[in-house]
Amino acid sequence: MVPERGFPYSEYQDRLQRAQAYMRNAELSALLLTTEPEFRYFSGFLTRFWESPTRPWYLIVPATSNPIAVIPSIGAALMGKTWVDDIRTWSAPDLTDDGVSLLIETLREIVPENAKIGLPSGHETHVRMPVADLDRLKIGLGSRYIAGDNGIMRDLRMVKSPLEVAKIDTACQIAGRAFERVSEIAGEGVSLETVFRNFQILCLEEGADWVPYLAGGAGQSGYEDVISPATTAPLLKGDILMLDTGLVWDGYFCDFDRNFAVSKPDGKVKSGYKKLIEAARFGLEAAKPGATASEVFFAMDKIVTGGKSQSGAGRLGHGLGMQLTEWPSLIAKDYTVLQEGMVLTLEPGIEIEPQRYLVHEENIVITTTGARMLSSQAGAEIPLL
Amino acid sequence: MVPERGFPYSEYQDRLQRAQAYMRNAELSALLLTTEPEFRYFSGFLTRFWESPTRPWYLIVPATSNPIAVIPSIGAALMGKTWVDDIRTWSAPDLTDDGVSLLIETLREIVPENAKIGLPSGHETHVRMPVADLDRLKIGLGSRYIAGDNGIMRDLRMVKSPLEVAKIDTACQIAGRAFERVSEIAGEGVSLETVFRNFQILCLEEGADWVPYLAGGAGQSGYEDVISPATTAPLLKGDILMLDTGLVWDGYFCDFDRNFAVSKPDGKVKSGYKKLIEAARFGLEAAKPGATASEVFFAMDKIVTGGKSQSGAGRLGHGLGMQLTEWPSLIAKDYTVLQEGMVLTLEPGIEIEPQRYLVHEENIVITTTGARMLSSQAGAEIPLL
Repeated sequence: MVPERGFPYSEYQDRLQRAQAYMRNAELSALLLTTEPEFRYFSGFLTRFWESPTRPWYLIVPATSNPIAVIPSIGAALMGKTWVDDIRTWSAPDLTDDGVSLLIETLREIVPENAKIGLPSGHETHVRMPVADLDRLKIGLGSRYIAGDNGIMRDLRMVKSPLEVAKIDTACQIAGRAFERVSEIAGEGVSLETVFRNFQILCLEEGADWVPYLAGGAGQSGYEDVISPATTAPLLKGDILMLDTGLVWDGYFCDFDRNFAVSKPDGKVKSGYKKLIEAARFGLEAAKPGATASEVFFAMDKIVTGGKSQSGAGRLGHGLGMQLTEWPSLIAKDYTVLQEGMVLTLEPGIEIEPQRYLVHEENIVITTTGARMLSSQAGAEIPLL
Repeated sequence: MVPERGFPYSEYQDRLQRAQAYMRNAELSALLLTTEPEFRYFSGFLTRFWESPTRPWYLIVPATSNPIAVIPSIGAALMGKTWVDDIRTWSAPDLTDDGVSLLIETLREIVPENAKIGLPSGHETHVRMPVADLDRLKIGLGSRYIAGDNGIMRDLRMVKSPLEVAKIDTACQIAGRAFERVSEIAGEGVSLETVFRNFQILCLEEGADWVPYLAGGAGQSGYEDVISPATTAPLLKGDILMLDTGLVWDGYFCDFDRNFAVSKPDGKVKSGYKKLIEAARFGLEAAKPGATASEVFFAMDKIVTGGKSQSGAGRLGHGLGMQLTEWPSLIAKDYTVLQEGMVLTLEPGIEIEPQRYLVHEENIVITTTGARMLSSQAGAEIPLL
């Protein structure tokens, strides 16, 4: 069943309360947020307009009051439909002062002198505003100063609410149905470019709002890499085709892949693929509250490399949600402790001969006692097209 | 005719030479680039993998030698297919040192002591790396220091080569064919959500590689805003439907819209729409080498507001190319002088009654003597569905 779109205001109030508890601990008077998911997390402001890099957008989350949006006037109508009621706008683009004065004024009003403002600055973050404007902001704040966010956004967003999980689940089901139909669009003689284009159509037909991410590969007994764009080369007998999609439903991603054999796979492919399925199963078993990301990594690494801790992709899975990839990383040295509500990909890869890879990926959510599949677990045999 | 994909190496060599001439002027020893279009502009590295925010990617453009890629190892195979031959990798994600040491080491090798490194910092830019890592980088560089890029990336990217224009032209033609087919998917009783989904399918069917941007609106005699996501509300008699797409072909965008009337439009809509078409025609006439962005703005503003210089969207058009929106902006105070090869949108909007807008958009390229349409100019009458 497809859940309702959007969230009740209570969802945003919960997020705000949790954020404010963290902020008190970290002695932060406000968070300053600039990127799409950070902005949407507290406001519910959902639009594809972020594709335009022209205008900066600012959300201030004060330690003791409701969020304040400092945004280009083009966003006022849509922001007016969210629960945010303090909306301050300027006419952007403005080549000499693109919201910086208004932002400074607002922060000086909200944040006491000598107090600290948290700007996300750690791993997997960036600041979506011109660096020159960030410098101007720092000067304009006077005794108030900008520091990191103490990992607050990471800690908050890493644990999904049941309503968030339902959206990711919906995205996974849409992708699952599209994957079931791949034989309609792919086979010997069809170019990878055509397969990519038509797989996106399948995702839309099955209910995706849009398809921000599609990657994949095809090659004899495996593929050379997993991030190259599709070429016009036709699929050949002996090829293994992999499609990996991050489609979106109501602002939440799935991120998993499926492999297909254009003709009967050889022994090396069959045994490599079995190992991937086995690794994902071991990953699923290891993933439970209290376990670390590192432990889940080692559970899979044992199968795919025999414990050598090598991975061409750099990791064997990751968080996902409002973005295609989020914290944590399934790597040897990520000791993040798993909690109920975390959503992860299990993404074991294997090099079956030099420069020939197979990669398999599933999506799971951590539950009270273990983990539950969100993608519909792939079978032990690679499906034939 | 659809052009070839990719660019010959000579295109990248030209870009590099032009960049290096600018860099000598600005006394920069290197450019440091972190975002997708900047990275692709000099390397040809085209992938949808940037959708994952996890890993930073660095491209160094030295003042006197070829670009150096400092990238996660997952990108090595694809980067190996470009003309860049100095590729340095690390296994990302690394939670303690995610490429920063390798980047510092490389910059210290390339850039002399006390010399300046240009990092894009102005309007419409951001730095795609964690702020904490940027701070570490600055310290690690010792006497070398980071400054702005002196607007070099803007000046370079704003003027498109003939091969770039051909790609944008191709994207425009694909969108044009999709717009021709809107009556197949939209009409009274169809929800805007279904229209959005199926219009993306049309874009893919007509040849889009992907559809990063689709916006629009629908409402009685106009729409309230142009960036909200689609709802499940069905189209009604009297509604005006607007679809605005930024689809991509080989890494280049189009960005234009079309309006449709669900039933015979009333007089206000008809006259408002005629003004938009007239404004775009005046914009087209004003757009030529030597004219300023401001002059093109005023040519259109005269028609849509009678010269009041007001715009709900904040501007009446903008550059486009590797991104949906680029410099310059068609606003009163952007005095950028137009040159042959610049690609622009003309995007007049009109408020036909309070909170009811109509927006029209075309794409053009500046030629030696004037400007040429890239989108196929809309007619003076709003088409009926």
